[in-house]
Amino acid sequence: MIAIIRPGVEKTKIDALCDWLSGRGLGVHVTVGEFQTIIGLIGDTTGLDIGLLEGLDIVERVQRVSEPFKSANRKFHPDDTVIDVGGVKLGGGNFAMIAGPCSVESRDQILEVARSVKKSGASFLRGGAFKPRTSPYDFQGLAAEGIELLLEAKRETGLPIVTEIMSAHHLPLFENVDVIQVGARNIQNFELLKELGHIRKPILLKRGIAGTLKELLMSAEYVMSGGNENVILCERGIRSYETATRNTLDLSAVPVLHELSHLPVVVDPSHATGVARLVRPMALAAAAAGADGLMIEVHNDPKNALCDGAQSLTPEQFEDVAHRVREIRSIIHD
Amino acid sequence: MIAIIRPGVEKTKIDALCDWLSGRGLGVHVTVGEFQTIIGLIGDTTGLDIGLLEGLDIVERVQRVSEPFKSANRKFHPDDTVIDVGGVKLGGGNFAMIAGPCSVESRDQILEVARSVKKSGASFLRGGAFKPRTSPYDFQGLAAEGIELLLEAKRETGLPIVTEIMSAHHLPLFENVDVIQVGARNIQNFELLKELGHIRKPILLKRGIAGTLKELLMSAEYVMSGGNENVILCERGIRSYETATRNTLDLSAVPVLHELSHLPVVVDPSHATGVARLVRPMALAAAAAGADGLMIEVHNDPKNALCDGAQSLTPEQFEDVAHRVREIRSIIHD
Amino acid sequence: MIAIIRPGVEKTKIDALCDWLSGRGLGVHVTVGEFQTIIGLIGDTTGLDIGLLEGLDIVERVQRVSEPFKSANRKFHPDDTVIDVGGVKLGGGNFAMIAGPCSVESRDQILEVARSVKKSGASFLRGGAFKPRTSPYDFQGLAAEGIELLLEAKRETGLPIVTEIMSAHHLPLFENVDVIQVGARNIQNFELLKELGHIRKPILLKRGIAGTLKELLMSAEYVMSGGNENVILCERGIRSYETATRNTLDLSAVPVLHELSHLPVVVDPSHATGVARLVRPMALAAAAAGADGLMIEVHNDPKNALCDGAQSLTPEQFEDVAHRVREIRSIIHD
Amino acid sequence: MIAIIRPGVEKTKIDALCDWLSGRGLGVHVTVGEFQTIIGLIGDTTGLDIGLLEGLDIVERVQRVSEPFKSANRKFHPDDTVIDVGGVKLGGGNFAMIAGPCSVESRDQILEVARSVKKSGASFLRGGAFKPRTSPYDFQGLAAEGIELLLEAKRETGLPIVTEIMSAHHLPLFENVDVIQVGARNIQNFELLKELGHIRKPILLKRGIAGTLKELLMSAEYVMSGGNENVILCERGIRSYETATRNTLDLSAVPVLHELSHLPVVVDPSHATGVARLVRPMALAAAAAGADGLMIEVHNDPKNALCDGAQSLTPEQFEDVAHRVREIRSIIHD
Repeated sequence: MIAIIRPGVEKTKIDALCDWLSGRGLGVHVTVGEFQTIIGLIGDTTGLDIGLLEGLDIVERVQRVSEPFKSANRKFHPDDTVIDVGGVKLGGGNFAMIAGPCSVESRDQILEVARSVKKSGASFLRGGAFKPRTSPYDFQGLAAEGIELLLEAKRETGLPIVTEIMSAHHLPLFENVDVIQVGARNIQNFELLKELGHIRKPILLKRGIAGTLKELLMSAEYVMSGGNENVILCERGIRSYETATRNTLDLSAVPVLHELSHLPVVVDPSHATGVARLVRPMALAAAAAGADGLMIEVHNDPKNALCDGAQSLTPEQFEDVAHRVREIRSIIHD
Repeated sequence: MIAIIRPGVEKTKIDALCDWLSGRGLGVHVTVGEFQTIIGLIGDTTGLDIGLLEGLDIVERVQRVSEPFKSANRKFHPDDTVIDVGGVKLGGGNFAMIAGPCSVESRDQILEVARSVKKSGASFLRGGAFKPRTSPYDFQGLAAEGIELLLEAKRETGLPIVTEIMSAHHLPLFENVDVIQVGARNIQNFELLKELGHIRKPILLKRGIAGTLKELLMSAEYVMSGGNENVILCERGIRSYETATRNTLDLSAVPVLHELSHLPVVVDPSHATGVARLVRPMALAAAAAGADGLMIEVHNDPKNALCDGAQSLTPEQFEDVAHRVREIRSIIHD
Repeated sequence: MIAIIRPGVEKTKIDALCDWLSGRGLGVHVTVGEFQTIIGLIGDTTGLDIGLLEGLDIVERVQRVSEPFKSANRKFHPDDTVIDVGGVKLGGGNFAMIAGPCSVESRDQILEVARSVKKSGASFLRGGAFKPRTSPYDFQGLAAEGIELLLEAKRETGLPIVTEIMSAHHLPLFENVDVIQVGARNIQNFELLKELGHIRKPILLKRGIAGTLKELLMSAEYVMSGGNENVILCERGIRSYETATRNTLDLSAVPVLHELSHLPVVVDPSHATGVARLVRPMALAAAAAGADGLMIEVHNDPKNALCDGAQSLTPEQFEDVAHRVREIRSIIHD
Repeated sequence: MIAIIRPGVEKTKIDALCDWLSGRGLGVHVTVGEFQTIIGLIGDTTGLDIGLLEGLDIVERVQRVSEPFKSANRKFHPDDTVIDVGGVKLGGGNFAMIAGPCSVESRDQILEVARSVKKSGASFLRGGAFKPRTSPYDFQGLAAEGIELLLEAKRETGLPIVTEIMSAHHLPLFENVDVIQVGARNIQNFELLKELGHIRKPILLKRGIAGTLKELLMSAEYVMSGGNENVILCERGIRSYETATRNTLDLSAVPVLHELSHLPVVVDPSHATGVARLVRPMALAAAAAGADGLMIEVHNDPKNALCDGAQSLTPEQFEDVAHRVREIRSIIHD
């Protein structure tokens, strides 16, 4: 970490700061330039509050040199993490298609979609039982009943299930869930993340609505510092000024996260774009960018569900995407 | 709500959509233009899922005409809401200075700051007991002990207290807290908001890190739809591409929220800017923009707290700001 | 276009507005809802200033229903535009690799790169002669000499050339240039765009630094309304709050622009990411998203050019990317 | 400037880089940390291309420590710049109200507005003759005739005039203009900025649509490095994800620019908000934040100009704002 001192600060004040920093066990290294003095800090600065340092009158700016995340950092864990759910793998060269409806709506719906996506090559079934909705007046999900239906679909198809949690209070309901998802709106719900660090199930973390990649990794760090190293990162589009798509899918996140971290990275083109006809090109692009998996919304019968599935693919569309994704992966890895 | 139909869609499909919408109790009004057909929906569309409608192949775009929030909407509640905490008022012409340290650190610290800010005209004492920190390795607050110390400061000074909650699970600890704050990172923690709708204490909602004003009002709606109408909105800076300040303080939010809603609006210039020397100009600007209150970080003794209070004012600086804010308010309201 | 009237406005004022709008030759269609009145405008509203209408006291909001661009609009020109430069085609199924150095630096450099990228399958040679630099102290390009060197490379290799213009004043120097590029910083330099509408060379328009897709299409409209229909659109990353990459490459722009417009869309992964090692994954992703071409920076000899080519590929890396891009295109189109 | 080296790079490569940097006349200072090596550069790095350095394989990140702007930098010019136009001053404690219509429309209009705003205390008259419009189909201004009308208004009222230039080609028309404005869309039209560096008139630079404060200062540097030190900076709102206002007015820019630079800073609340009723609160807030001036749109007769002046104040509203601004300035400076 580097602290840049404001011009014209008296040496005694700089010395006082250096003493204080040394007292916290850090190596201190001062460089006096023509216009500015810089204090370099050597050692473990993860416990040092950057905001406090920045607030000092004599400090112009503080810049981190090494990342504040450790468990998630590829520097300290060069090998890819592989998530293994009863033999179904994700990461480290294992690609996973996670497919299913936005919300679990009924027994028939989830069973039919589960059978269909399994046939088309999905390796995980997704479906929302607890739904975070901007409006309190929108459908909030089937809750416990939705999870029961997902588990029934799992028993029938053998597909491990991925579903979202919205409160640590609901954890007992997730006992048989395979992968617990934390949504974009809860990605800095640190109390929830801490609880998820105490279990051993894989946790799929969606990037915040306007979250940085560093923040996503720090949220992973919350889970991992509790002892749960089974974390999957998910790019799902970020908020920008552009309104042509619901979110701006940031596919550069895939290779950047792979550089910074050993954790697997999946992409959700359905939520990112919000429109079914953009899902195919963005799913193929995500595969070409090197994603370890895709999360895609699929619904069973759009004809009888007039206002359902805004951003969902039909099973046929999903099969086509899954097929081309496999081909693209063979090209980028050959 | 208006649904714009894609060009060239067959009339039978449009009719099917109209029938479906009518079946949901909405008035349907079709305008056929030269290039496009538009369906206008009349009646209560708050329960209609805009995403579902947008996802239909025949729909190009959906635009809301009336806001999806009701309880927080000035159209239906023209008079300003006044928050009354044992006689201390906020909103509807009552201005409140909410001051105190970022975190409660010790008994001496919080008592000294409380006395000092009371003398300078603060009407509420703020202080963090539970701290949402991006890094799991940073100081997380004194928790229950911090709340005890705040209550002691309240007993001594009579100042009502404002402090942040991070999990509904902690609610019992907040029994004697006067105003419960929900931080920017939890503003779409809908499970927490629902719980806060079941109590009757005032809830101060901070705008999300990259939250829209509409989202802030929808979060207010979550609390209010549970029956708790005591909501205070807080602008605290938004995330933008600009890195010269920690956040971009959006002061236009003050008059815009006043137009859209009857709820009081306070501004937090300390978190927005992240630097003490920017707090004064931004506090004065917020007052000039018509804010109903200010939340300002104040610490007692920066000399002995070398690395404390990055963005905090000294009591003297706070007194100066409080004095000028009162004068500015007399100018804008005269 | 739809104008939403503020609640409670008197009927006489609404009638006055309707009369004024009718007087401008627009069909006017009033819908009175429970809480709001909406005025729908039918006919050609491209000449109506949306800002002026929005500013009226009685108007709450104005929403465009049809796009304000015509020449660039796929609705009126359903077939893909194909750019043809002496037989080298781009768009409508013709994919183009545009490769070359960021700046033309010397005769040897540009000739060597030109030969190399031609061998690897590039169809256009790019290279900057006029360089828009944020700092007046940075290298500003070889100007006229740079264009001469590009033309020499063209004579030798037969590759048509693409180079950036920064002022209409320089147009005479571009007489033998094949495709004129307008950079992100000049994309709303409307005086320049108007001048480029009077010539007949293809114009490659880079999306603004924080430009919307609609603005990009309106800039195309400036060129096309002058009579020059040879426009190529280029996604090059947008500014967001994320600092992990120089820009945020918005690949959804490719399918969205293809829906809205008949113009070809190329992607520049080099400027978007700013780092050579991210160019490959993003180039492959752009091809998978359906781009009509790629603009990629290639330099000849990184070993002897220690501080050159931050974001440039070596010829070998470019050959590898070009090869895989061809394979990906065969998958997405089969 | 600091270059952070990627972990695990061989010492010989670091040495080669250090040699190369030394060869450019820079002092080189290497710090070897536990995980990372850092190279500090001492001396004038303004001529060093940060992008080139960042692109090197062995470099992880480059961070500037001192700003790349010199002429505009307060570090080297501690005293406030005062712009003096025939005795009318702006900056260094001199506050200026710049008022007038968005566009010059007619002789009567501009003369009437000029008289009115002069009476209410404006010190400059503004009005657009050349209008940068997103759509080629919108009104583009009266051009040369508009400037003639502004000059006539100047002769009658004595108010110096401020008007926008869109191309260096038009400079001869601006011979008698007092202050030349460069709009947000041309703020990185470097060819235009260079030309404006060769004259001696004051140049008012509007921050880019999504421009950083550093970029605004670098654009000032383009003008100043040509020898023209009469530069005024203007905050006019930035692009963000928030759509409740046209732009997000970033008032923190005022104190931040005052820290970084000696140039005067004015604020344009009219373009920032796009709505007349938000101009008053934002104008007062800008004054409270310490702005050196305000640019406000005023039109003469909204009653007869039904669709004119969306974001303009009436002369009475302007007089009220001007009066309160003077009072606020007395409070913040007392």
